[in-house]
Amino acid sequence: MVYQTSIEVTTRSQGELHDLTNAVVAAVADSDIRTGTVHVFNVGSTAAIGAIEYEPGLLEDLPQLLNRLIPASRAYGHEQTWHDGNGHSHLQATLIGPSLTVPVSEGAPVLGVWQQVFLLECDTKPRTRRVIITVQGD
Amino acid sequence: MVYQTSIEVTTRSQGELHDLTNAVVAAVADSDIRTGTVHVFNVGSTAAIGAIEYEPGLLEDLPQLLNRLIPASRAYGHEQTWHDGNGHSHLQATLIGPSLTVPVSEGAPVLGVWQQVFLLECDTKPRTRRVIITVQGD
Amino acid sequence: MVYQTSIEVTTRSQGELHDLTNAVVAAVADSDIRTGTVHVFNVGSTAAIGAIEYEPGLLEDLPQLLNRLIPASRAYGHEQTWHDGNGHSHLQATLIGPSLTVPVSEGAPVLGVWQQVFLLECDTKPRTRRVIITVQGD
Repeated sequence: MVYQTSIEVTTRSQGELHDLTNAVVAAVADSDIRTGTVHVFNVGSTAAIGAIEYEPGLLEDLPQLLNRLIPASRAYGHEQTWHDGNGHSHLQATLIGPSLTVPVSEGAPVLGVWQQVFLLECDTKPRTRRVIITVQGD
Repeated sequence: MVYQTSIEVTTRSQGELHDLTNAVVAAVADSDIRTGTVHVFNVGSTAAIGAIEYEPGLLEDLPQLLNRLIPASRAYGHEQTWHDGNGHSHLQATLIGPSLTVPVSEGAPVLGVWQQVFLLECDTKPRTRRVIITVQGD
Repeated sequence: MVYQTSIEVTTRSQGELHDLTNAVVAAVADSDIRTGTVHVFNVGSTAAIGAIEYEPGLLEDLPQLLNRLIPASRAYGHEQTWHDGNGHSHLQATLIGPSLTVPVSEGAPVLGVWQQVFLLECDTKPRTRRVIITVQGD
């Protein structure tokens, strides 16, 4: 069995996280799948999907970490192609990755109490993100 | 077809790796699935799952790398919420990610000879980890 | 339903990216699966699979970033085991990870216009890579 849906997430600025957990729980419930996996994927190359404890401190820490490891700069080769100043956005998104898969058990995603599914906007301007949620199993 | 099981992994300290490959091979064998995928997921936000050549040198190198890129510090925003000194643990775990999916062929996970599935403890104290293994396919 | 195939990718040097998107699209078409997921996995511990806008600038930026964060060095513990000078290759590959899962909708992988599936060679010598593509769904 497979069930697929999509959601839109409107972001305002680089470094903004969104908690997708409720949407993932709802998709799994709608799927009527009891045991399997749920896959969450951002369409596009400058946002990332992952897992984190969704609390205010880490919402600051994660983008700060990425900006320290991969700072904004006009020196990236990407700038030679597009001149849009978001080379670091692409690299940050690739490092975290565009997707997460979570097990499904008893009709719900299996997550820790302090483990949520996030979308991280890495681009430098507001975007409307399309996230595909695919549930598979029995 | 879907088959799901879980294992417990008892860890002692930050930076400790555990080789989950035998448990993954056993789960795939128990599933009777010949072709598909096996998904391995850590429940909780301060441990990670990934793939590595499981040899003594890299068992030192990977946590050292993460401690260099994301050092322990009381300056993380996470500290303002919880005061538990493990902000870096959360960030290290998010960077590597909580899960890995491996193809299954002829009833076994397809891994290189020097490619193993690991759990990395990123937290600062001993933990009992629950890892969910989900096999899907025919 | 599950469909599995593999491709070979011949690489020449560390930091070389290969665009696997056409191979992934072809595998999904061959599978006759309309809705589900496609999983792409590199067998071996010194190459990585991910998603990126496949343009010349980023093809330089990504390996440069990894070489800055995880430089080549004889000081890695891995060197004590193998003396083959590719400790950084293992760590770079583990950080990006060996696999990517993309949703399938209407018989094709759902990717952004500027979002491609890459293989990144992290090893220091030419390699022939085997990549397993597994499509699951209905």
